[in-house]
Amino acid sequence: MTLPAEFAMINRHFRPLAGEGALGLTDDAAVFTPPPGRELVVTADTMVAGVHFLPDDPAGAIAQKLLRVNLSDIAAMGAVPFAYLLALSIPRGTPEAWLAAFAAGLAADQAAYGIHLLGGDTTSTPGPVSLTVTMLGHVEPGTAWRRAGARPGDDVWVTGVIGRGVLGLMALRGEVADPDGSLAAHYRLPSPRVGLKLHGLVSAAMDLSDGLLQDSGHIARASGLTIELDVTRVPLCAAGVAQGVGFVDSGAAGGDDYELLLTAAPADAEALQAAMAGVPITRIGRCLAGAPEVKAIDARGEPITPGTKGWSHF
Amino acid sequence: MTLPAEFAMINRHFRPLAGEGALGLTDDAAVFTPPPGRELVVTADTMVAGVHFLPDDPAGAIAQKLLRVNLSDIAAMGAVPFAYLLALSIPRGTPEAWLAAFAAGLAADQAAYGIHLLGGDTTSTPGPVSLTVTMLGHVEPGTAWRRAGARPGDDVWVTGVIGRGVLGLMALRGEVADPDGSLAAHYRLPSPRVGLKLHGLVSAAMDLSDGLLQDSGHIARASGLTIELDVTRVPLCAAGVAQGVGFVDSGAAGGDDYELLLTAAPADAEALQAAMAGVPITRIGRCLAGAPEVKAIDARGEPITPGTKGWSHF
Repeated sequence: MTLPAEFAMINRHFRPLAGEGALGLTDDAAVFTPPPGRELVVTADTMVAGVHFLPDDPAGAIAQKLLRVNLSDIAAMGAVPFAYLLALSIPRGTPEAWLAAFAAGLAADQAAYGIHLLGGDTTSTPGPVSLTVTMLGHVEPGTAWRRAGARPGDDVWVTGVIGRGVLGLMALRGEVADPDGSLAAHYRLPSPRVGLKLHGLVSAAMDLSDGLLQDSGHIARASGLTIELDVTRVPLCAAGVAQGVGFVDSGAAGGDDYELLLTAAPADAEALQAAMAGVPITRIGRCLAGAPEVKAIDARGEPITPGTKGWSHF
Repeated sequence: MTLPAEFAMINRHFRPLAGEGALGLTDDAAVFTPPPGRELVVTADTMVAGVHFLPDDPAGAIAQKLLRVNLSDIAAMGAVPFAYLLALSIPRGTPEAWLAAFAAGLAADQAAYGIHLLGGDTTSTPGPVSLTVTMLGHVEPGTAWRRAGARPGDDVWVTGVIGRGVLGLMALRGEVADPDGSLAAHYRLPSPRVGLKLHGLVSAAMDLSDGLLQDSGHIARASGLTIELDVTRVPLCAAGVAQGVGFVDSGAAGGDDYELLLTAAPADAEALQAAMAGVPITRIGRCLAGAPEVKAIDARGEPITPGTKGWSHF
């Protein structure tokens, strides 16, 4: 009995990725025992060709970015990822080689991050490739990091380097130089900050996907306070600064960084830095009692007003 | 501080749907305690405008169908649904009224099926509306229905009426008469068979979404046996039969029924019928030792070969 093409494709490319609970992708749903004594953490992110990635990006890198933007959301809660579902909408006639490369990208990051495929769906679409991953993680009950936990007086910290995501996109568009391709690599393959052991040291957290200013606003609103960011302290990408792309163009408005924005009590500053296990972290501001807003100040303490505030889909 | 349009839209339409664990949709992910002592069941299904629904279908009905096709997968495992994530990709400029009606459809079925929104994503797309739901359910450990459990000698059963999904699509295209709109209603609003208490009586199960013949093949392959279907016993839609749309066009090739296909030992036939709690069920065939295939036989026991075997996306 010949398999319909849809199921033959699933068997060929995706069944090898299926792990515990996936039932070999043969059934209507996955069944698994949740990790005992843990809370579950679950998130879903979609990527659409031409919106979240370039249609000509390598298929393997698209797959990895898809997993990594979801892993970044799990990381932002302080949780441990373990499995995911994949909903794949692709045009009829998508080449086998594209699917094989896409699956190879998934396999690489499954190994890198210790996750497995649980299930999902494969459909055709008359539109662009559209990909949704639902990522599952677990966390010690009551310890998930929230956006609402910041308190007046807390420091504001950011991991890594800011602006490389948007600079990578600009490089791929030929708008900035990128001789060794490292900027493009950051856009295509962000490195989610999974696995940081900062529990008890962090009062609020989130990941940066829509630009530092806009994203900081989420913590300001959720925690009901003002966030003051010292623009001169933001760890901007040196390659961008050297080409005249500074805070306003990459730090404020740029997205796709997938670094973590954290708040912590000043008394925990040293312990926080020690717990980062080699991941760079920079203090870039502080939380103040006041209206839920973000104030960016320059070297003289004067407020600056970037023209755009970050990415919005609508 | 003004919210970006994307987050204002989420607050307006989707935050009222958020339930326990969703953290008011303010954070990077949802956090919840899994039901103690239960296995989790999880599935994801995508619907694309022009593929899975008609672009002009009412937005509320699209939302309900989206939940119901996922609920049907949970029902097919014998599980109890409790929450879902929604990934919504819509064109820029989608009217507020469309979003309001879509959210109202979600709200109606949340109440009808006892589920709540946990999280998700909202993005723009240059293509057609594309919607993915990930549905979570729970089940007594070890009791989830599988496709692999059928045994030679088991009866094959189907719930409800077969063919109404495809007949509804034909009615909406003007290909069959539908004076009271009931066929179109079945296409737009299937009724997933959630909540049947058949544990211990069913050896294999799945839901019918791609046509009876093709879907039966999944149980045949997973269980490693032949399924013989008596075409004369299939409970076809009378309105279709009266218009000349019989087994080949609606029962074999038609999809979108979202009835359950079940197998059970003959000794359990009476108990199974008694346990259906008023949901119609019909014995339509049997499982035989043999190659993994589906044989459809007519009134004289002769094999029939429909021209098409069901829906495939590729």
